[in-house]
Amino acid sequence: MSTKITGYPKDGGFRMPGEFERHEGCWMVWPERTDNFRLGAKPAQKAYADVAHAISRFEPVTMLASKSQFSAARENLDPQIRLIEMTTNDAWVRDTGPTFVVNDQTGEVRGIDWRFNAWGGLVDGIYFPWDQDDKVARKICDIERKDYYSLEDFVLEGGAIHVDGEGTLIVTETCLLHESRNPHLSKEEIEDTLKNYLNLEKIIWLPEGIYLDETNEHIDNILHFIAPGKIVLAWTDDQSDPQYEMSLKAYNVLSAAVDAKGRKFEIFKLHTPEPILITEEESQGVDRIEGTLPRKAGDRQAASYANFYIANGAVIVPIFNDGKYDKLAIDTLKKAMPEHEIVPIYAREILLGGGNIHCITQQQPQGQIRGL
Amino acid sequence: MSTKITGYPKDGGFRMPGEFERHEGCWMVWPERTDNFRLGAKPAQKAYADVAHAISRFEPVTMLASKSQFSAARENLDPQIRLIEMTTNDAWVRDTGPTFVVNDQTGEVRGIDWRFNAWGGLVDGIYFPWDQDDKVARKICDIERKDYYSLEDFVLEGGAIHVDGEGTLIVTETCLLHESRNPHLSKEEIEDTLKNYLNLEKIIWLPEGIYLDETNEHIDNILHFIAPGKIVLAWTDDQSDPQYEMSLKAYNVLSAAVDAKGRKFEIFKLHTPEPILITEEESQGVDRIEGTLPRKAGDRQAASYANFYIANGAVIVPIFNDGKYDKLAIDTLKKAMPEHEIVPIYAREILLGGGNIHCITQQQPQGQIRGL
Repeated sequence: MSTKITGYPKDGGFRMPGEFERHEGCWMVWPERTDNFRLGAKPAQKAYADVAHAISRFEPVTMLASKSQFSAARENLDPQIRLIEMTTNDAWVRDTGPTFVVNDQTGEVRGIDWRFNAWGGLVDGIYFPWDQDDKVARKICDIERKDYYSLEDFVLEGGAIHVDGEGTLIVTETCLLHESRNPHLSKEEIEDTLKNYLNLEKIIWLPEGIYLDETNEHIDNILHFIAPGKIVLAWTDDQSDPQYEMSLKAYNVLSAAVDAKGRKFEIFKLHTPEPILITEEESQGVDRIEGTLPRKAGDRQAASYANFYIANGAVIVPIFNDGKYDKLAIDTLKKAMPEHEIVPIYAREILLGGGNIHCITQQQPQGQIRGL
Repeated sequence: MSTKITGYPKDGGFRMPGEFERHEGCWMVWPERTDNFRLGAKPAQKAYADVAHAISRFEPVTMLASKSQFSAARENLDPQIRLIEMTTNDAWVRDTGPTFVVNDQTGEVRGIDWRFNAWGGLVDGIYFPWDQDDKVARKICDIERKDYYSLEDFVLEGGAIHVDGEGTLIVTETCLLHESRNPHLSKEEIEDTLKNYLNLEKIIWLPEGIYLDETNEHIDNILHFIAPGKIVLAWTDDQSDPQYEMSLKAYNVLSAAVDAKGRKFEIFKLHTPEPILITEEESQGVDRIEGTLPRKAGDRQAASYANFYIANGAVIVPIFNDGKYDKLAIDTLKKAMPEHEIVPIYAREILLGGGNIHCITQQQPQGQIRGL
């Protein structure tokens, strides 16, 4: 039973938990778009399967796959991965799936079904149409028999928000204030909506995200809440890199800020990899189709180690075969999250599709009764 | 997590429970074949929805629908019906879904994935291909995270078997011994397989089922176990009806038999409705396609009130706008099952597709620990 709930989650005592809180499991979508992923998406499928298998060591994983790819996905996934048929437009469940909220008094979990428009709709969306992706959140809630909230008139992606679960949200202005999302709303109105749905007291706005990030610079590519008061921030020491100014601005905002509880942030800098460019061979493997963002040789990808997934007791982090910065990223995370196992996955093929491990995963929190 | 189990359910302490035992819920598939259901399947969809809504008063219902029909199904189903996308070839989950077995010591529930060949494969199957329908059982087990047994080389449909949950199975010879099912196996080998998978001590073979039943006369159209030792049997008093001899033969076998526990059967006769023929208008509404059994005007349908579904505390029984026998059927069931609510549903549009309420439903039993 999955019923549409009216009213705000906040008023019902629901909050969005931090990703580092306990999960019931994780959702993913099997990639197959040949106009986004090269070589019939086979290399990307391998990378997605690697991520699924890594996460499944720590929590249950459900993969969604289309009719045409269902049997292939089943063959390539270990039996512990639950596979369910679902039509989608692409494979970024962070942005298309529900944002789950929890009630700490009852242990109930509900979903939020935001409006999805492929990161920009007819203004600067990445593909057209996006009708099937806009149905994903509701479908997942129905599979899980979770009641859900549905916003008919508010565009948001899960990758555009990061919370600490204790009243603080961090977002980027480039994304949330972009004309392609909710141009009919003022910044204050957007804040009010987010506060009411995610149960927040404070929203921190970073000016920008990661250089050339096609999502209009989602927050989840530049930073990650790893605990209340603790943030991992994508960084570069190379002052000639356009990313330097962008990360510096973010750092300055975060350094000066306090969270909803009045705490200063502990910030761990996570150095970005050396610039990653699409090769000629990689570009040629992608179908060119009108209406889909092209993957051109030489284009720099928005690579960032901050785009990891926190599973129960583990961090699944992208690496890029970068001789210098892969190890630094792993070491930084080990230091920042000493109680988590750090699991690196080679993720270039995910990156080539426009995102990374955080973008292709969506945690379903475990409802727990607290403080009674 | 859904793992393929080797070995026999019987050896692991699993048995197929009677349909009258407690259910976790019920599965259905949304109909859409325009070469089987008339007028784009719209009238059938209405009837299926009526059945789903009726059952959902007593236990949770999950409806499976294709990509193309998903949104239409969602619009036509109340929110308490869980809707999950799944590709199928047609909409008879009794025959395509898993047969669930339970372990009374652990409470565990597992599925059995029989081979499905559209009621006869290339010999006398009803449509071609049937590849998607053959995947349904496994997919349902994966959605429910139930481990499953899979028989690569044994064709069976759930509608071809009726058990009392206490070691007794009743089947028809016309179906199980038909050359289109398992011609490579002897009757004894078929019995051994059924005994090992369903945990049986006794199999009772009826010679025939319902006249002109295109499933090769499935058992679930002629009788229903309503409790251990209690059977409802389709019957007619009209000696000129070919059904008379068929039901009489069944009655004679059952009257002379004892079940696995040595009990004689109490048999409730359920008179069939007046013959139901496809009208010219009904026939014309069905697409004629090579490879699919045609729906010709004047063809008599295999109508039987015994093709009902036992939900938790209720019986969902087909009626046919038959001025005489609808009421008789309802009254007979009220007498036979006084503790169940009898819920009649007008089901002509299901019947026109080749089956009835039992054929379009599949119970998922509730695992329970007993006798400890």
